[in-house]
Amino acid sequence: MQILVFNAGSSSLKFGLFSVDRETREVFKGSYERFRNGECDYRFRHGETDERGAAPFASLREALTGVPDALMRFGLGSIDAVGHRIVHGGAQFSAPTLLDDARVETIASLTPLAPLHLPANLEAVRLCRALWPELPQVAVFDTAFHLTNPAFATTYAVPLQWRDAGLRRYGFHGTSHKYVAGRAAEEIGRALGDLQLVSIHLGNGASVCAVNRGQSMDSSMGMTPLEGLVMGTRSGDIDPGAFGFLFRELGLSVQEIEDALYDESGLKGLAGSSDMRDIEDRAAKGDPQAQLAIEIYAYRVRKYVGAYAAAMGGLDAIVFTGGIGENSPSMRRRICEGLGFMGLQLDHDRNMAANLADRAAPQIQAYGSRVRIVVTETAEQLMIARETAAALVSERPESPLRLPIAVSGRHVHLSREAVDALFGTDYELTHATLLRQPGHWSAKERVALVGPKGRLERVAILGPLRERTQIEVSRTDSFALGIDVPVRDSGRLEGTPQVTIEGPAGSFTTDGLIIAARHIHTNPADAARLGVEDGDYVDVRIADEDRALTFSRTLVRVGTDSFTEVHIDTDEANAAGIEVSATGELVEP
Amino acid sequence: MQILVFNAGSSSLKFGLFSVDRETREVFKGSYERFRNGECDYRFRHGETDERGAAPFASLREALTGVPDALMRFGLGSIDAVGHRIVHGGAQFSAPTLLDDARVETIASLTPLAPLHLPANLEAVRLCRALWPELPQVAVFDTAFHLTNPAFATTYAVPLQWRDAGLRRYGFHGTSHKYVAGRAAEEIGRALGDLQLVSIHLGNGASVCAVNRGQSMDSSMGMTPLEGLVMGTRSGDIDPGAFGFLFRELGLSVQEIEDALYDESGLKGLAGSSDMRDIEDRAAKGDPQAQLAIEIYAYRVRKYVGAYAAAMGGLDAIVFTGGIGENSPSMRRRICEGLGFMGLQLDHDRNMAANLADRAAPQIQAYGSRVRIVVTETAEQLMIARETAAALVSERPESPLRLPIAVSGRHVHLSREAVDALFGTDYELTHATLLRQPGHWSAKERVALVGPKGRLERVAILGPLRERTQIEVSRTDSFALGIDVPVRDSGRLEGTPQVTIEGPAGSFTTDGLIIAARHIHTNPADAARLGVEDGDYVDVRIADEDRALTFSRTLVRVGTDSFTEVHIDTDEANAAGIEVSATGELVEP
Repeated sequence: MQILVFNAGSSSLKFGLFSVDRETREVFKGSYERFRNGECDYRFRHGETDERGAAPFASLREALTGVPDALMRFGLGSIDAVGHRIVHGGAQFSAPTLLDDARVETIASLTPLAPLHLPANLEAVRLCRALWPELPQVAVFDTAFHLTNPAFATTYAVPLQWRDAGLRRYGFHGTSHKYVAGRAAEEIGRALGDLQLVSIHLGNGASVCAVNRGQSMDSSMGMTPLEGLVMGTRSGDIDPGAFGFLFRELGLSVQEIEDALYDESGLKGLAGSSDMRDIEDRAAKGDPQAQLAIEIYAYRVRKYVGAYAAAMGGLDAIVFTGGIGENSPSMRRRICEGLGFMGLQLDHDRNMAANLADRAAPQIQAYGSRVRIVVTETAEQLMIARETAAALVSERPESPLRLPIAVSGRHVHLSREAVDALFGTDYELTHATLLRQPGHWSAKERVALVGPKGRLERVAILGPLRERTQIEVSRTDSFALGIDVPVRDSGRLEGTPQVTIEGPAGSFTTDGLIIAARHIHTNPADAARLGVEDGDYVDVRIADEDRALTFSRTLVRVGTDSFTEVHIDTDEANAAGIEVSATGELVEP
Repeated sequence: MQILVFNAGSSSLKFGLFSVDRETREVFKGSYERFRNGECDYRFRHGETDERGAAPFASLREALTGVPDALMRFGLGSIDAVGHRIVHGGAQFSAPTLLDDARVETIASLTPLAPLHLPANLEAVRLCRALWPELPQVAVFDTAFHLTNPAFATTYAVPLQWRDAGLRRYGFHGTSHKYVAGRAAEEIGRALGDLQLVSIHLGNGASVCAVNRGQSMDSSMGMTPLEGLVMGTRSGDIDPGAFGFLFRELGLSVQEIEDALYDESGLKGLAGSSDMRDIEDRAAKGDPQAQLAIEIYAYRVRKYVGAYAAAMGGLDAIVFTGGIGENSPSMRRRICEGLGFMGLQLDHDRNMAANLADRAAPQIQAYGSRVRIVVTETAEQLMIARETAAALVSERPESPLRLPIAVSGRHVHLSREAVDALFGTDYELTHATLLRQPGHWSAKERVALVGPKGRLERVAILGPLRERTQIEVSRTDSFALGIDVPVRDSGRLEGTPQVTIEGPAGSFTTDGLIIAARHIHTNPADAARLGVEDGDYVDVRIADEDRALTFSRTLVRVGTDSFTEVHIDTDEANAAGIEVSATGELVEP
């Protein structure tokens, strides 16, 4: 399949033709840049050819209409679909989307969130739909990867009315972060879902992303691409009190301040140039402005690395990408300096020698560094081609199979050691009720849970006994206890918080406190009928009349003789309006 | 000495009378709050007395004039000096300052930096100077502790014109952070100068401070007290793009946005209440707004802890203070959760049982936690009393002794192992020149230094050989090498960066790369004449005609037979316009 990818900005049009089969290959790479009076610069790369020159196009619109001829000239007329980089997808678009009139309008309605970028993106979409009316066109969003960020990371502490108006954190560079995180995991040889990783994209725009076990958890850009790191011409983080100061003291308007924060700040504001190579050379010759700009730039990145390691509760790897991340060994070194206390140590020779040709992703940590350090080129266009192709693949038919929903109240699974401590040595629990999962029961005995904020009494015990004690509570329970409890799949207890269990014979303090991630128990036969496999994540729709709701990312667990049912907790049941029992069905994610 | 301390805000006046001798003791504590139609609430505490009621004061001005009578009533008329909490001292005031007309005017000129707080502070100063014209009055600044922050931490990446107008980071709560950091060090039993500590002040206003070996390095409030953490009614960090969005979409003015960020945001904006106890209770009962507010609050603090550990390159302790930090075990727990990867582990029982009575500062980390966790009450007024008393102590007379200045170019001190690697086994270096310090020489041989950005050729070798190799470069050299080099006292090489040294026989890679902190070598006789001791930090003034300059924080090193001279590096010499030789003199800091 041949996919044509566009990345349209106000001052440049980049495009590429990709062949997407089992592997994705870039066939052609083109750009039109620096639109000016009647012409612009172009560059075409195809096989051995690398051609540059001036083209007679004064605008994005003119340049785009030149693309079919340019491709023809290289004998590349055959295209199956067009993929577009769209900077902002708001809260609506969590995945690549096939464009139709309605969706184009929805994207246009998001313009207030990215007034500098979306108009150019949309102009390219509209022109391409006119140029290739018969081709499917897919939007791939910079924000989509970050829609998994939890509310506590995306919510600004501002009045409700502002939040309702759309003021929240989104994050950008999602396509790049997703790509390089995957590439780093591949290089390290571990599943991305097992890694706590910080992705550092340092280009003209720059952002850091906490990729926690495969999902974006937080990123340094916020509602707009102004927040976060120091960039080429953008300020990154500043005091929200700065606007009032500049307005009152310098008489500047909101628009004047914002324009300067986008175009006259960052490296340019600090050192008069947005080009890091230039700044590094001047710094080496003693220019104090350039020296300070480098120090601020690195310091801001280093603080985000520390912040995101703390946010995720650990760090397995960092990955550098973007023009500066790929090409400045001294900036990489400066950022990594002093992070030895969290197990991150650069190898200076590997750092100097890092060679990124042929999609390489060299590891440059020192021998014995617990945290891996990877450098790799980003490949946003290639990723857009891949995601465009994936969006076109015909969709899985809806399953008509009804799934029973089981609501789990708070409960504990005890180890032998815990039973001994709570009830006395060799005590045998009384099986009061048999559960639907074969071999599982609940006990007549109850225990209490104790946290810094309060107690939960009469908590159920479910059997059989396990190797490790596991305590499952709801989100509301976690606040009643006063403990920050993570959502985890059952059995994944590394780094979970401690809680004290009290029984009649004594108390037992242990880790293993979780909010159980919702999941579907099923058996091989039902799994086949549902078209799912062990480890898949699926969406389950609950069709209550009043509170219909779809649970995304529900883990499928296939057991030889499991009874097929969906396990959710009491908070989720309340949200869906389930009182005693209900059924759901699989839907397309 | 009896010191009366004032902390005046727009809606309250707090004051205290302290007896400052070898120990500082609070004798009387008073407050007037909630000024309204013709009256306000008051509270007086003195010995066993704890008296509350309504006083006939409708404003700060009226309340202040009532203070002498209130003190009289408790037989407390004798006062030696008045100390004032002043929220903002700009870049001018790095220490407590005796107030005169000129200094009051200078403080008034800083009002644009803290328009909500300084007017009330200054009103109290002016009234007190009228009420007690004969008493010395001292200003103690919230910002002063943070003036040691390096430029890379205080500089926003904005246009130069804005930075020239005063837009930079200052940081607040300095008196509190300084006090609790000192209190924590005392409790841990180590010198504050040896600790890398994060101080977490969670009151109605809230901020985090990186206290790096005794000095503030960074803090979460910026130019104004709006930046940083989520607070009672203040937003903390938001996207700088938010102003443009709110202006264009909701038609709000800069002033309306700023007012709402100060008064309608933070916990109040998230959960309708600025009272954390109320929010915790509602969260435990299932209120999702309250739950989210708690999560955001803790998440923001936890990220700052990680960021500041990365900024300092290590973490030995954190200290909680302020109403929430002192009183919410569940918030402390939530903040500490997941930081085990950096050696920080809370003990849940100690956390619950923490008792702060009688200035206690209990440690609540788990057994085996490498990072200490301390909780203690802050004591800003007590600290202000102490600093006020210290500011009154008569000053050291200026010393007339001229100090020769020696300019050190880049050089290395080699170990035996390094000489072997660079020049061949058992090679003996040739002594080319004898230096002024007895027994010290420079060698005929030279080496090269190699970093990721470039090489420095023909670097001098100074003898005698040392146990550990130490490489001393200037700040400019550090950029030429492309390595982030810390300023360190000679011999303090823990955690310093690596560099490769090249000699004729081979290369040698080692840590020990520093920018040498300026220092004075002297002997016991000269030290006595100068009135300094080993380990003191003093200020040295260089009186070049064109570029007169004072070096602060110059370390005194007394050696038995040292020659008295000041060692600075080439960047410092350039800054002071020194070409070959010069002399300086000690001045008051």
